[in-house]
Amino acid sequence: DSYDSSGTLKLDSVSGESIRAAGVLDSREEGRKVFQWMIAPHSEASFFRDYWEKKPLYLKRNTPDYYKNLFSTSILDKILHEEKIHYTKNLDVTSYSEGKRQTHNLVGQAHPSVVWDYYNNGCSLRLLNPQTFHRPVWKLLYNLQEHFNSFCGANVYLTPPGTQGFAPHWDDIEAFLLQLEGRKHWKVYKPRSEEEELPEFSSENLSQDEIGEPVLDITLEAGDLLYFPRGYIHQAVTDEDVHSIHITVSTYQRNSWGQYLQKLLPRAVDLAMAEDLEFRKGLPLDHLRVMGVVNSDMETPGRSAFLSKVKELMERLLLYAPFDAAADQFGANLMHDALPPLLGPEDKMCSVHSGGERWCKKKQKVINRVELDPDTYIRLIRGNVIRMVAEEDGVKIFHCLENTREYHQEDPQFFEMSHEHAPAVEALIHTYPKYITVETLPVEGDDEKMTVARGLWERGLVVAAHPLENRDDD
Amino acid sequence: DSYDSSGTLKLDSVSGESIRAAGVLDSREEGRKVFQWMIAPHSEASFFRDYWEKKPLYLKRNTPDYYKNLFSTSILDKILHEEKIHYTKNLDVTSYSEGKRQTHNLVGQAHPSVVWDYYNNGCSLRLLNPQTFHRPVWKLLYNLQEHFNSFCGANVYLTPPGTQGFAPHWDDIEAFLLQLEGRKHWKVYKPRSEEEELPEFSSENLSQDEIGEPVLDITLEAGDLLYFPRGYIHQAVTDEDVHSIHITVSTYQRNSWGQYLQKLLPRAVDLAMAEDLEFRKGLPLDHLRVMGVVNSDMETPGRSAFLSKVKELMERLLLYAPFDAAADQFGANLMHDALPPLLGPEDKMCSVHSGGERWCKKKQKVINRVELDPDTYIRLIRGNVIRMVAEEDGVKIFHCLENTREYHQEDPQFFEMSHEHAPAVEALIHTYPKYITVETLPVEGDDEKMTVARGLWERGLVVAAHPLENRDDD
Amino acid sequence: DSYDSSGTLKLDSVSGESIRAAGVLDSREEGRKVFQWMIAPHSEASFFRDYWEKKPLYLKRNTPDYYKNLFSTSILDKILHEEKIHYTKNLDVTSYSEGKRQTHNLVGQAHPSVVWDYYNNGCSLRLLNPQTFHRPVWKLLYNLQEHFNSFCGANVYLTPPGTQGFAPHWDDIEAFLLQLEGRKHWKVYKPRSEEEELPEFSSENLSQDEIGEPVLDITLEAGDLLYFPRGYIHQAVTDEDVHSIHITVSTYQRNSWGQYLQKLLPRAVDLAMAEDLEFRKGLPLDHLRVMGVVNSDMETPGRSAFLSKVKELMERLLLYAPFDAAADQFGANLMHDALPPLLGPEDKMCSVHSGGERWCKKKQKVINRVELDPDTYIRLIRGNVIRMVAEEDGVKIFHCLENTREYHQEDPQFFEMSHEHAPAVEALIHTYPKYITVETLPVEGDDEKMTVARGLWERGLVVAAHPLENRDDD
Amino acid sequence: DSYDSSGTLKLDSVSGESIRAAGVLDSREEGRKVFQWMIAPHSEASFFRDYWEKKPLYLKRNTPDYYKNLFSTSILDKILHEEKIHYTKNLDVTSYSEGKRQTHNLVGQAHPSVVWDYYNNGCSLRLLNPQTFHRPVWKLLYNLQEHFNSFCGANVYLTPPGTQGFAPHWDDIEAFLLQLEGRKHWKVYKPRSEEEELPEFSSENLSQDEIGEPVLDITLEAGDLLYFPRGYIHQAVTDEDVHSIHITVSTYQRNSWGQYLQKLLPRAVDLAMAEDLEFRKGLPLDHLRVMGVVNSDMETPGRSAFLSKVKELMERLLLYAPFDAAADQFGANLMHDALPPLLGPEDKMCSVHSGGERWCKKKQKVINRVELDPDTYIRLIRGNVIRMVAEEDGVKIFHCLENTREYHQEDPQFFEMSHEHAPAVEALIHTYPKYITVETLPVEGDDEKMTVARGLWERGLVVAAHPLENRDDD
Repeated sequence: DSYDSSGTLKLDSVSGESIRAAGVLDSREEGRKVFQWMIAPHSEASFFRDYWEKKPLYLKRNTPDYYKNLFSTSILDKILHEEKIHYTKNLDVTSYSEGKRQTHNLVGQAHPSVVWDYYNNGCSLRLLNPQTFHRPVWKLLYNLQEHFNSFCGANVYLTPPGTQGFAPHWDDIEAFLLQLEGRKHWKVYKPRSEEEELPEFSSENLSQDEIGEPVLDITLEAGDLLYFPRGYIHQAVTDEDVHSIHITVSTYQRNSWGQYLQKLLPRAVDLAMAEDLEFRKGLPLDHLRVMGVVNSDMETPGRSAFLSKVKELMERLLLYAPFDAAADQFGANLMHDALPPLLGPEDKMCSVHSGGERWCKKKQKVINRVELDPDTYIRLIRGNVIRMVAEEDGVKIFHCLENTREYHQEDPQFFEMSHEHAPAVEALIHTYPKYITVETLPVEGDDEKMTVARGLWERGLVVAAHPLENRDDD
Repeated sequence: DSYDSSGTLKLDSVSGESIRAAGVLDSREEGRKVFQWMIAPHSEASFFRDYWEKKPLYLKRNTPDYYKNLFSTSILDKILHEEKIHYTKNLDVTSYSEGKRQTHNLVGQAHPSVVWDYYNNGCSLRLLNPQTFHRPVWKLLYNLQEHFNSFCGANVYLTPPGTQGFAPHWDDIEAFLLQLEGRKHWKVYKPRSEEEELPEFSSENLSQDEIGEPVLDITLEAGDLLYFPRGYIHQAVTDEDVHSIHITVSTYQRNSWGQYLQKLLPRAVDLAMAEDLEFRKGLPLDHLRVMGVVNSDMETPGRSAFLSKVKELMERLLLYAPFDAAADQFGANLMHDALPPLLGPEDKMCSVHSGGERWCKKKQKVINRVELDPDTYIRLIRGNVIRMVAEEDGVKIFHCLENTREYHQEDPQFFEMSHEHAPAVEALIHTYPKYITVETLPVEGDDEKMTVARGLWERGLVVAAHPLENRDDD
Repeated sequence: DSYDSSGTLKLDSVSGESIRAAGVLDSREEGRKVFQWMIAPHSEASFFRDYWEKKPLYLKRNTPDYYKNLFSTSILDKILHEEKIHYTKNLDVTSYSEGKRQTHNLVGQAHPSVVWDYYNNGCSLRLLNPQTFHRPVWKLLYNLQEHFNSFCGANVYLTPPGTQGFAPHWDDIEAFLLQLEGRKHWKVYKPRSEEEELPEFSSENLSQDEIGEPVLDITLEAGDLLYFPRGYIHQAVTDEDVHSIHITVSTYQRNSWGQYLQKLLPRAVDLAMAEDLEFRKGLPLDHLRVMGVVNSDMETPGRSAFLSKVKELMERLLLYAPFDAAADQFGANLMHDALPPLLGPEDKMCSVHSGGERWCKKKQKVINRVELDPDTYIRLIRGNVIRMVAEEDGVKIFHCLENTREYHQEDPQFFEMSHEHAPAVEALIHTYPKYITVETLPVEGDDEKMTVARGLWERGLVVAAHPLENRDDD
Repeated sequence: DSYDSSGTLKLDSVSGESIRAAGVLDSREEGRKVFQWMIAPHSEASFFRDYWEKKPLYLKRNTPDYYKNLFSTSILDKILHEEKIHYTKNLDVTSYSEGKRQTHNLVGQAHPSVVWDYYNNGCSLRLLNPQTFHRPVWKLLYNLQEHFNSFCGANVYLTPPGTQGFAPHWDDIEAFLLQLEGRKHWKVYKPRSEEEELPEFSSENLSQDEIGEPVLDITLEAGDLLYFPRGYIHQAVTDEDVHSIHITVSTYQRNSWGQYLQKLLPRAVDLAMAEDLEFRKGLPLDHLRVMGVVNSDMETPGRSAFLSKVKELMERLLLYAPFDAAADQFGANLMHDALPPLLGPEDKMCSVHSGGERWCKKKQKVINRVELDPDTYIRLIRGNVIRMVAEEDGVKIFHCLENTREYHQEDPQFFEMSHEHAPAVEALIHTYPKYITVETLPVEGDDEKMTVARGLWERGLVVAAHPLENRDDD
């Protein structure tokens, strides 16, 4: 078969570097590098070994400009002037004073002078999903998403001098706080009990007397990083002399083993029932008399037999558990949640996004007619842009290319493909980031190869190694 | 504690027999007897060992009157004249001829002369849920339900001479066919494959050429019984000289181990996630790259590690699986599905259903004032009339007493009770069919004992050993 | 054409009296007589001239048994013992004491001894829709419905000695109170203002200090009648020595000219727009500047022109108003609201309800085969049992025959008929209560006549003058 | 009172011209001018007198550049490259050939080279709502909306040489076709009957043999205008040598007298019922017997009386018809439908949209603190940006300021105001386009004047005559 011993598809492919000079070389590698940059000088390996989901990491970098290209208060002002920012949907105005947390949101559009008036009166501003309004944030988050294989979001927090904007609380996401300007004093507290470690949901506002002593009490200055796992309680206050603005990058919201089992087990039972007579046999006539809370202290033979049988069936269930299908359901959900990739000029010129036919004002007609050829080198436009899910009559290809930067604004995007064509997509997934020619696609028949390739091309999912050749003279 | 070694609650109780002369003595015992009568001379033990869910049982009884009190064509005629029978909801008019199965139902009410006209023209009649219209069927099914601990339903089939009313097919229930009048030739076929054994759902109509050879080819005459498990294909035809009417008693529809696991496992994961940190930990960053249908042929370390971890967690899940709560959910569902008990004059006079205060036409006032006393002997009105389900703040008592004879016409009936009062209900469940005094209920405080007892009394769920004493002179 | 000068269809028809000896002769005439009996010795004419929708009528009859066959406290006791009576749906337990109105309803089924215990403690009982449980009430209300051409409902009120069950209030229906047993003192008050005369909706509970002085202060004894129009405030109290039970018959709920216009006018505009260009022309460009609340004090030419044009169009609207279709919508709604007719043995034997084919236990086969003939005399089973509504492609025949005695338990019942067959139904409506032969139906073709007649016959909507002839020998 | 004889509020106000040098002077006047420009050299008066809703107007202008700044094929190409254009939602790809009309839309995003490939193969492109993607179109339509007081929309049609993109059909809107480039031959046909004049809904595709002879057969070249009323059938074809692109401006969709009556009459009946006893009186007992389709040929006294009464009530209804409230409902709907105004730098600097507080990057703090003063001159930001609707407890102010350019993407925008504050808004509406000082607002109390003014200011609905004064030194 066409896989080698390590499970990799053996195909005649060429790396992007050798045939293409610029653009994203490997989106997954790019994701890794961006994550490295974010936590540098810590290595990824040591971070995941020592801190991830375990304990906070405070990183004093002494390089105030390190994150400055990401976002700033001036950018926030610009966004307020130029975009339709709505209270609650895009912006929260908050305060925390004398133990009282308040939200001051009005209704409708947030006009800059009104917002700044609140700020001048001591209110904090939280800009939700800044990726919708600022491309560097979009770019950062998309890259991290390629690395984490989980949705990455962000909020920006601006706090005026001498104030605190939020009550102590914990969140349900892994949090990376990148300080952009100014200074803020943070106190971070351990989860109060094992039940509150790595929680599924965020907490209510907590009061000062129920959170104990901080395990971290530090000052974040421009360029510094603070990471803490979900469940860690935190609060922060600014100095009297300077404001603070930071961006919190979040990920791994409800992305746990338990969530995986919630998808896996109901399907496992369905499959076991379809395939294994033992699961379809009737319950014993007395099961309602030996089981149930009123019988839980009994030690009857019927009860023991029932419990043994259930345990036996639960073991047997492993034979039917659709481990891959459950992962694919996660993957398809990620395609719905995900930020779309941010395409560069190279991506566009070598794909349907901007390559090919266009209107020529001078000639008043369409020019630059192009066509895919059997020997055109193609690859997926990004490593994680699609997910294939097996169905009875074919496969569904989910993708995130047409998502907007606003979370879940679009319905899940997918199209269907026959089982015969699916290996072509599989090959493109496995060979990424290398390019392969259309004629190399593991599909029967030259016409079929072209059909699959054209379908992916017209949806913008594949990119050629070079802009396609102009055929206007043909 | 108050349970003895066999798990039985030790309470001062007296059997019904010693203090009460008539009425239902033990509804569960009654259920068993009725089932015995139905399959006699087969013993219950041999039936469940050799036939139940395994193979058909044909029983030639040579006692034409054996089932005759259950139902008859004359009863059907009476019902058509006196009740509002609706096509499709209550009655189907069908035919099967030259391989073609047809339904001839009109819209709205089925008037007798129209129905008999169809019958005269060779159509079969199927009366759905005859228990709604005829008390002997209600009584039979209620009793069987006490025995099977699963909903028991019925249909009546009347077929004119020389015809067949239905195409070959299989059903999703255990079927007991009791021949009432006339004669019918049955052919029964094994499930065609293991996948079709004990199926979850009934089949479409099948054609003669896809069902093979019958394993049973017999004639059912009045008084005879035919049982076959779900999944067995069957068809029947009447002789030219005589019609056939039989009643099919059904049970164990979707009452399998698989259904139990479908209730158990999602709750098990929820509980495991709440209680065990391992289930809340994040999935590995690479899980979407090593798992999924496109990676299913790979043998990578990440994939092996992932699969090992899932299997470990599935074993660990057993520690959190709420075996009793899942059974109670089954029990609560049964209370919704169940036929209500048919109460006799004894039941009524010794309970709120007819005992106590009533209007005296002569005196033009309410007479026969009664009250429960601490030494009043009470028990549940039937063994399986309630199901207790534990909730966070107390318990829910589901019951079937106010259901109608029509399936699911009422919403689930339940009321709430504090954890402190729950042991009283537990005691009543465990001591049934014996009676115990109100003052014996395992609840703190005499007033509390009376409160619980009165609550159950006013809902008609308990019955006293004797009619309560008239206190009109007090 | 086939109508004479008074608009009556000229058909060869015979009155029921001449060809049939018993049963309902004319349901509308029967309705009139029952109403006469109810208000006797007042004449219908004087009642409608002097009291209806105008003022209360108090009628001291000195005949305690006059209404006694309708209902009694003993009947109520019997219903509580034999039927499933539910709190709130069927029964309210209420009290009014020291200005405070309370409802004491429990949840679920109302058991007699519990209900009587409340009664003994001073609570009033209100049985809702007694027609569902007691045939004489059903019969009364069905007859009144034939007379009023509007839904007639009822409640029964039982009040223990020395109490009041309800706060002063007004209702949204015309109320006829028929005293059945005992005695009750009533105070009736005029509506407090013109706005509260003949109101659309019932009032909240009122306090004693906001209702003024009664216009009627009387004692109702068994056999007496009290009528008052909707909007009249009322309250009542029993003597210390005797209880009171009465039935309130209600009608004309939201059955006003305004309701008619609400149905008429939107359809009138739709039709005018379809047929008359003036209604489709655009509004003037300035209409939003000359009209509207901020412009209501202006006197501009644009505003005057706009108002003149609207008034002109409203007059013109009369040309398109579908007066008959709006009435038919009322009629179709009545068929949904209506009680079904109570059929007597004569009705049943001469119709599909019980006439024709039946099962003979002795012969074990269907006997009494019958058929409609061209010369069979038929008529509608009741005068007001159907309503014909014209649609584009045919007519819809709404009827109330399959309604249950519970309000709106069934969906609207109707069937469709071609325009060609509609005149047959029209003829049956116009000739009622006379009988006509099938062959007289104004439909082209003998087969078509039979088809229409059989369709109505099979639905039970027509009745023959005599039971159809037995053709078993044919 | 404060209105003069012409209904105009007398207020101390100053025209914009005297105190402000630039920006929109009067949005309604601007609207009129833009409409004039569009139909020039025709005058508005003659257009509305001779053509509007009456007949087509063909205007050969011989000025190819007249409309060229509105839109072009190059702009379309740019939009396809830079915006997320979706098939069906934003773009239709169509063809009409040999009597067959086809739509070739794919699913999802429309990539330029795919779209141009369709075009090259003879397909027409229709860009829906170009105002969303191109500001000059937005500006044109907003201005026309101020003039028509009705929603104005647009589509752009690009047709390749030698083709036709659509079948003959009529639309439900008044259509103004502005030719942008190239050339197209149009045939326009009269409505086929009076029923099809000024229709409420658009037609299906028509065939060539059911449309008769054109009343207009002309060639539209760049700069030319073609107007025709809704209901006029039309079709067009391009020459072999040149493409055609035009924009169709549409308005007055379902904006007719009939639509007004549909809003007016149901409310009129409600009010009449509340205020006039005649409307609450019951219908006559016999109304269902004298009215209805089966009685429509009758001439009975009951029927005549019924009809007279209805007619009398319909006249009486005029007394209660809420002419202004119905217009305000139209106005409020328009605020939902409407395009938002396109604000210029002047508008922004003199309002909350950009005036006042902003972030100073240099000082790293908020600067330019401003405040409204009693003597600040203000006016509405546009003439038709708000609509006031009277409610029981106050007024609702609907506005279109926060709508997006996409139709109905936002819910209706409104806020509530007390009856006491409403005259301030009324005054701003009536004095527009003049400015008035805050202290002149007809509201009791200086604080209240400021409260109302600030509320409108913070929502961006009013604009000051000059940027507010910087108070950073205070």
